[in-house]
Amino acid sequence: MEDGFTTVSIIGVGLVGGSLALALKEKGLAKKIIGYGRNHQRLKEALKLGIIDHYTTSLEESAKADLIVLATPVGVFEELTTQLVSYLKKGTVVIDVGSVKEHVVNTLEKIFPDGIQFVGTHPIAGSDKTGFEYARADLFKEAKVIITPTDHTDIKTVERIMRLWQSTGAVVEFMDAAEHDKIYALMSHLPHLISFCLVNTVAEIDTNFIKYAGSGFKSSTRIAKSSPELWKDIFMMNRENILHCLDVFIRKLDEIKTLMSSEPTEELKKFMEKAKKLRESID
Amino acid sequence: MEDGFTTVSIIGVGLVGGSLALALKEKGLAKKIIGYGRNHQRLKEALKLGIIDHYTTSLEESAKADLIVLATPVGVFEELTTQLVSYLKKGTVVIDVGSVKEHVVNTLEKIFPDGIQFVGTHPIAGSDKTGFEYARADLFKEAKVIITPTDHTDIKTVERIMRLWQSTGAVVEFMDAAEHDKIYALMSHLPHLISFCLVNTVAEIDTNFIKYAGSGFKSSTRIAKSSPELWKDIFMMNRENILHCLDVFIRKLDEIKTLMSSEPTEELKKFMEKAKKLRESID
Repeated sequence: MEDGFTTVSIIGVGLVGGSLALALKEKGLAKKIIGYGRNHQRLKEALKLGIIDHYTTSLEESAKADLIVLATPVGVFEELTTQLVSYLKKGTVVIDVGSVKEHVVNTLEKIFPDGIQFVGTHPIAGSDKTGFEYARADLFKEAKVIITPTDHTDIKTVERIMRLWQSTGAVVEFMDAAEHDKIYALMSHLPHLISFCLVNTVAEIDTNFIKYAGSGFKSSTRIAKSSPELWKDIFMMNRENILHCLDVFIRKLDEIKTLMSSEPTEELKKFMEKAKKLRESID
Repeated sequence: MEDGFTTVSIIGVGLVGGSLALALKEKGLAKKIIGYGRNHQRLKEALKLGIIDHYTTSLEESAKADLIVLATPVGVFEELTTQLVSYLKKGTVVIDVGSVKEHVVNTLEKIFPDGIQFVGTHPIAGSDKTGFEYARADLFKEAKVIITPTDHTDIKTVERIMRLWQSTGAVVEFMDAAEHDKIYALMSHLPHLISFCLVNTVAEIDTNFIKYAGSGFKSSTRIAKSSPELWKDIFMMNRENILHCLDVFIRKLDEIKTLMSSEPTEELKKFMEKAKKLRESID
């Protein structure tokens, strides 16, 4: 297996971890897939569904792999890695699939000793759905995967991980971790924050109004169904970037407020036309 | 045609007007459907697609109908109705399908003389798509249609319009116009406003970031593709209600900002859990 790995450990068998497991099996890029988690019963179900070949609740056992994929909420990466590191054999490759990169990459690089090759990656393929029940081998097809190597990252390993993600159908892009976090603060973290706040605006004004939700409300708040456990970590770890984007967003709210308070409404229309045009440049 | 109408004029053959035309024909509730508009070429296409049976750019001609449906942007209802009213024969029923009701109903009721039966209605079945090309007979199937009768509305006509909407598959609900506007300021108008502002936040920070949009950004900004022409009218006509909701929303943004600035993150998680729970109570 020049490009693949004999044994792959998925630390956190959820939507993303489970989907990667399925994709690697389908492409013949992993001989054996170990699922690590805390919950026996859940892992057993994942095994039954054929997502993993073996499961364990022992980090030591999960460490016996050629590739380790950190796929838990980002907030537990540090603790997990600190425990895991003593069990790892030289040459093991570790990747993470977290939505925040600068803090994660800086922290984990300090923990791993020489001989352990760590590469930060972020597949843009999450969902409001959580759990391996929603996992599918084609989750990453045509999805972007951002890889954030640093000066310390082994170039051969980066190439290997690039090919691994490409084999799942993903489109790989390299980026500085700080740049990644700036972009996704705006393009993903801010929309999630807004969505949670919009639903809580309904909760504050009148919970009963929720039954009048039409397709517009539903699509603009779909991501408020996302996991709070996952998102509190992302919000905290990328706080500065998100707060900056939020400030700009609040200025835009003030702008439209001002436009709504004066006639004629030509400028209000132009404001919306600008948004419509940019939004229509993507599908 | 006890429940149906011999001739129906659709004033503004777009997504909603066109879909109602198709639904009425399918259910045998209209013998002849006239499409009124300003653009000959567009009307000709609607005729060719079988959405309307006849078209005209003369309001006088469109007035020769038993049921007239106002389906243009709400901002032109007043002007159109003022011109239309002199051509109407006694007994004509007029409905509108606008997203704002209090201002519309109050204004139009003053314009119509005795003998013209006006009923305000709002089918919750819009889309970011505009134009009769997207019209379909089942657009209103299982959609809510809010009817907002007043003390002046003829009760027999209200019942007839209720049955008309029900026959398209819609679920009719009666409501005071002011209550309608409060609810939809929150459940539809605010989400649209937020969506336009979120896309313009990207325009301000870096337009190029748009290519990193994932499914979350896309679904939460889909409605920013809506018609600025249509939405500037809605924003202006329901301004006070929308601004009130916007104030509450901004307080929620401040709340999450505060929660993000302190550890532990239990309260931040609870804030999101509350939103998730309410959002999950609908599909």
